[in-house]
Amino acid sequence: MRIAMIGLGRMGGNIIRRLMQKGHEGVVYDRDQAAVGKLAGEGAVGATSLADIKAKLEKPAIFWVMLPAGDPTESTIAELAKICEPGDIIIDGGNTFYKDDIRRAKHLRESGIHYVDVGTSGGVWGLERGYCMMIGGPDDVVTHLDPIFDALAPGMGTIPRTPGLAQEDLRAEKGYIHAGPAGAGHFVKMVHNGIEYGLMQAYAEGFDILKTKKSEKLPEDERFDLNIKDIAEVWRRGSVVSSWLLDLTAIALAKDPMLEQFSGNVADSGEGHWTIQAAMEEAVPANVLTAALFARYRSRIEHTFGDKILSAMRFGFGGHVEIPQ
Amino acid sequence: MRIAMIGLGRMGGNIIRRLMQKGHEGVVYDRDQAAVGKLAGEGAVGATSLADIKAKLEKPAIFWVMLPAGDPTESTIAELAKICEPGDIIIDGGNTFYKDDIRRAKHLRESGIHYVDVGTSGGVWGLERGYCMMIGGPDDVVTHLDPIFDALAPGMGTIPRTPGLAQEDLRAEKGYIHAGPAGAGHFVKMVHNGIEYGLMQAYAEGFDILKTKKSEKLPEDERFDLNIKDIAEVWRRGSVVSSWLLDLTAIALAKDPMLEQFSGNVADSGEGHWTIQAAMEEAVPANVLTAALFARYRSRIEHTFGDKILSAMRFGFGGHVEIPQ
Amino acid sequence: MRIAMIGLGRMGGNIIRRLMQKGHEGVVYDRDQAAVGKLAGEGAVGATSLADIKAKLEKPAIFWVMLPAGDPTESTIAELAKICEPGDIIIDGGNTFYKDDIRRAKHLRESGIHYVDVGTSGGVWGLERGYCMMIGGPDDVVTHLDPIFDALAPGMGTIPRTPGLAQEDLRAEKGYIHAGPAGAGHFVKMVHNGIEYGLMQAYAEGFDILKTKKSEKLPEDERFDLNIKDIAEVWRRGSVVSSWLLDLTAIALAKDPMLEQFSGNVADSGEGHWTIQAAMEEAVPANVLTAALFARYRSRIEHTFGDKILSAMRFGFGGHVEIPQ
Amino acid sequence: MRIAMIGLGRMGGNIIRRLMQKGHEGVVYDRDQAAVGKLAGEGAVGATSLADIKAKLEKPAIFWVMLPAGDPTESTIAELAKICEPGDIIIDGGNTFYKDDIRRAKHLRESGIHYVDVGTSGGVWGLERGYCMMIGGPDDVVTHLDPIFDALAPGMGTIPRTPGLAQEDLRAEKGYIHAGPAGAGHFVKMVHNGIEYGLMQAYAEGFDILKTKKSEKLPEDERFDLNIKDIAEVWRRGSVVSSWLLDLTAIALAKDPMLEQFSGNVADSGEGHWTIQAAMEEAVPANVLTAALFARYRSRIEHTFGDKILSAMRFGFGGHVEIPQ
Repeated sequence: MRIAMIGLGRMGGNIIRRLMQKGHEGVVYDRDQAAVGKLAGEGAVGATSLADIKAKLEKPAIFWVMLPAGDPTESTIAELAKICEPGDIIIDGGNTFYKDDIRRAKHLRESGIHYVDVGTSGGVWGLERGYCMMIGGPDDVVTHLDPIFDALAPGMGTIPRTPGLAQEDLRAEKGYIHAGPAGAGHFVKMVHNGIEYGLMQAYAEGFDILKTKKSEKLPEDERFDLNIKDIAEVWRRGSVVSSWLLDLTAIALAKDPMLEQFSGNVADSGEGHWTIQAAMEEAVPANVLTAALFARYRSRIEHTFGDKILSAMRFGFGGHVEIPQ
Repeated sequence: MRIAMIGLGRMGGNIIRRLMQKGHEGVVYDRDQAAVGKLAGEGAVGATSLADIKAKLEKPAIFWVMLPAGDPTESTIAELAKICEPGDIIIDGGNTFYKDDIRRAKHLRESGIHYVDVGTSGGVWGLERGYCMMIGGPDDVVTHLDPIFDALAPGMGTIPRTPGLAQEDLRAEKGYIHAGPAGAGHFVKMVHNGIEYGLMQAYAEGFDILKTKKSEKLPEDERFDLNIKDIAEVWRRGSVVSSWLLDLTAIALAKDPMLEQFSGNVADSGEGHWTIQAAMEEAVPANVLTAALFARYRSRIEHTFGDKILSAMRFGFGGHVEIPQ
Repeated sequence: MRIAMIGLGRMGGNIIRRLMQKGHEGVVYDRDQAAVGKLAGEGAVGATSLADIKAKLEKPAIFWVMLPAGDPTESTIAELAKICEPGDIIIDGGNTFYKDDIRRAKHLRESGIHYVDVGTSGGVWGLERGYCMMIGGPDDVVTHLDPIFDALAPGMGTIPRTPGLAQEDLRAEKGYIHAGPAGAGHFVKMVHNGIEYGLMQAYAEGFDILKTKKSEKLPEDERFDLNIKDIAEVWRRGSVVSSWLLDLTAIALAKDPMLEQFSGNVADSGEGHWTIQAAMEEAVPANVLTAALFARYRSRIEHTFGDKILSAMRFGFGGHVEIPQ
Repeated sequence: MRIAMIGLGRMGGNIIRRLMQKGHEGVVYDRDQAAVGKLAGEGAVGATSLADIKAKLEKPAIFWVMLPAGDPTESTIAELAKICEPGDIIIDGGNTFYKDDIRRAKHLRESGIHYVDVGTSGGVWGLERGYCMMIGGPDDVVTHLDPIFDALAPGMGTIPRTPGLAQEDLRAEKGYIHAGPAGAGHFVKMVHNGIEYGLMQAYAEGFDILKTKKSEKLPEDERFDLNIKDIAEVWRRGSVVSSWLLDLTAIALAKDPMLEQFSGNVADSGEGHWTIQAAMEEAVPANVLTAALFARYRSRIEHTFGDKILSAMRFGFGGHVEIPQ
């Protein structure tokens, strides 16, 4: 199939590469024409504007928007809406808040334009491993796009099949699902990222306990001189905590056993936050996912005002003077 | 009554002062003889050694040990055990782990020595306001010491009586209780401090949300220029969150509205930790008390190794480079 | 002053009573005309419709809306907007989300109508103790309403003054503040309730640890037969954890020491949830406030699907069969 | 090598089976002689008592104790100590608290007996997949036992090697490590299980948010009719959250999509608890690992006393009556 990719960053560029490798045709656009030129050199059709893309697509036109969530995606889709014809398809593959999908899909439907949201996991490894995709949109449109998703997904590969899985929908085993109507794809991807934060923080805390066990802040007879890098490695092999995130941790520790190249200043994107909002809207307790998110906030603050409030109270009731750091 | 005070720090000194104000006689001892001299100048009988104290007491001798928990208290009580006679009473008024009380009481009982643990709340304000005491020990010994506890406790004062409280034990209304056998006093005090951590952290987080609402890290149209000091003050008056800890917060904010004199490097003592241990031994979920304790640990760390693990994973799967702080 | 009260529930009824006690005149309205009749019998002017109220007020008309947040408040204010004249004042004294205040104030301002949000704490005790109020709105309008707020606030009463408080704004010491423009009042009240949840949960967990220490699920030699009611009572007197919430706990335990009349099925209202949303918008870690909110969600669920996921995994890797409850 | 296995439960039986499959000789003992008979039928040498085992071993004798932690292990090792000769080796492969290992190793060393602690992960899948082992003990003894560990470990298998891993110690890549002196093995295994709890709870909360999104407790237009089983399946393929625990979850959901066979009453063993204790001893914040542990406590309680305290306070300040469940 012929498909346009708008946004040729780390994700967008590799997605179109993988599609071309599997025999699809890509029309590519980015504000940065150098990125367009690079992909054109790899076989894609370059475009110089949204209108130019539209002209270079078949009918129905398929646009995959792969831009930062929020304004860049929002304004691009608004522009596309103006040039699309009934039956055309706009795919948002970024990290959009699912309620924005619902709103947009409703609005575009009035003009006969189809909207599909694709939560995409796989990061910089996707080109090689394939992308895990969670898709929201109308049945027939998702079915129409099946060749695209099939090409992007990892496929069954060497991952053992789940015993007893009813073969109702082979898509899941290939690495993508049609989760429901517009918004459902990004909703599932959002929760995926919420879980990701929780998993990462579980490892982070565990490795912290291991690493601090080596620390001189403990009395000498309470220390163990643990080899953190070997511990990450051994857990990859037959242990209950083996995972892809652990594989990545082992790779990082193999290179830099004390992770001295990192400061520990950890960003978070919208999905962690939105997952907690969803939990609250559903009244589902989510202590682990929330603690994981808050640990990231805390990593970026030297001292909170709250810490100072504690010190002020302690001075107030006990005359306690702060210990120097 | 005549009673010895061993340890004339912030707590011990004021306790003996309050006892003397109420007509009791104090024999005082501290490694720091200047502290002894100061109290002697206020009417106490000074002592130069544990043996000297013993010689200056009536029978049964009453020793109140008010030293840091752990080694200082442990070794002093071991020394006292050697010079005590059957019927003598050793009171540990410090912040001892309750299982140590149980062990010590059992051991001293073999020599006929009575052991009483007194969890004491009130801090530097106790001299004036009185001390809230939670007591563990044998019935008859606690009854014998009633005049001491009665003098130290705040008494009913101006605090309204609890409607419907059965008047089984007036002690509670005066400000002290006999909680149970040895260890029970410090157990209740330990949980008291666990709660204290939780209350403090609840205020800390709330004030942090208020203060950050003023911050330039928010877009201008999302800020409120709140007066933090006035908010603390107004909540003291008729609101659901009024408390003594809030009174102290209001005092601190009145003096220094941004708490610039504090770094936010917050210590914790054993009780917070032991409360969580007790919760785990009882399989009681205690998310708030634990989060409060961990916030203090975190306040003393610039960047955790766990934060670096997160950064390493994020780089691994997404090529994310850390944002500078 | 003459003021209208719309909504005569627990809060609205008592607010108008307190205002009348202090010499103000109340015009009262409720869908339930029996409630109107009751207040009319106590000296208020009854009204049969919003238009009827308007007719019974002076200029500028002052409307205090005291209805459940969300639809009831929203639709009432929309109705009022239709009958108000420029210069009239609409007060929302309920638990409205502060972003709704900002939106409404902006909208009403276009018609020259003033909007004031009043976060009101004090519950069923407010009639007697006075209400703590956090107010958002234009300076001159809040100043115009000062006699109303002054009458409702607790006043200085017997609460000791905060030493060192600069007397810039006596309102805080009387029990109300002008927190900022529209929305600021409810924002501060929202955080107040967030803190309230945290404080409550800190006590809840502490008392749970005390109560479970009595439990037969512990080995006999690890139990203490603690008197929970006396512990609550004694902490009211001179301890660091004394507070109004503890006073209420002591009252409840005095009546029913094991709280057998309660099931432990705990509701939450919007403020707890919105406080966490605000924390996330500000990237402020708020583990305690969140854990407190989630404990309430959990209290209303018998078994979560998450618990079943855990059991399924445990069966999967270890063949562990669930222990019966 | 010839090795004795004491305790032929799920773990012990399969460990000896795997050893025999790899050419080692097993002497087996269990209080349940039927279990002994079964293994004897598979080629092991059965024993009728600890003394009988000893007689059937070469010198130095090697005993692998695979019993529940606590009394059963403690008393068995005490018995073995009586019949062992200098140079004999006692391995504790169970879930012992690492401080018990340190104590035991010190005590046995006085009699010239070697003690090795082996934290063993792999559960019921170990026979087939191999066991991941974390080992504490003296260098030479661990080296002597290498053939045993090598046989039990998974080996490199099909798991990709970590790029850049310095080949200092091939053991880690085979699936076992020598973590340090006595206790270090169980310390690392303890933290492993702490992490395991955190990972499990992250998935549990995420799936709960997905599942509740289907629930009738939400307004109809806020629901998505998600296919939980397919979501678990798709995440196994190329997503960031893929892991062995997710594989197990997918297997369970494939069989029983709503997990109706489980009640959600989740047990915890010592390691989760001890991990938090270690975190507290090291002053490492571990909010996620703790929340995961507490979620299990909570899963086994219908209503906490803490919940009732909340209800009592809410009734006290607001007259709120509990909503029925």
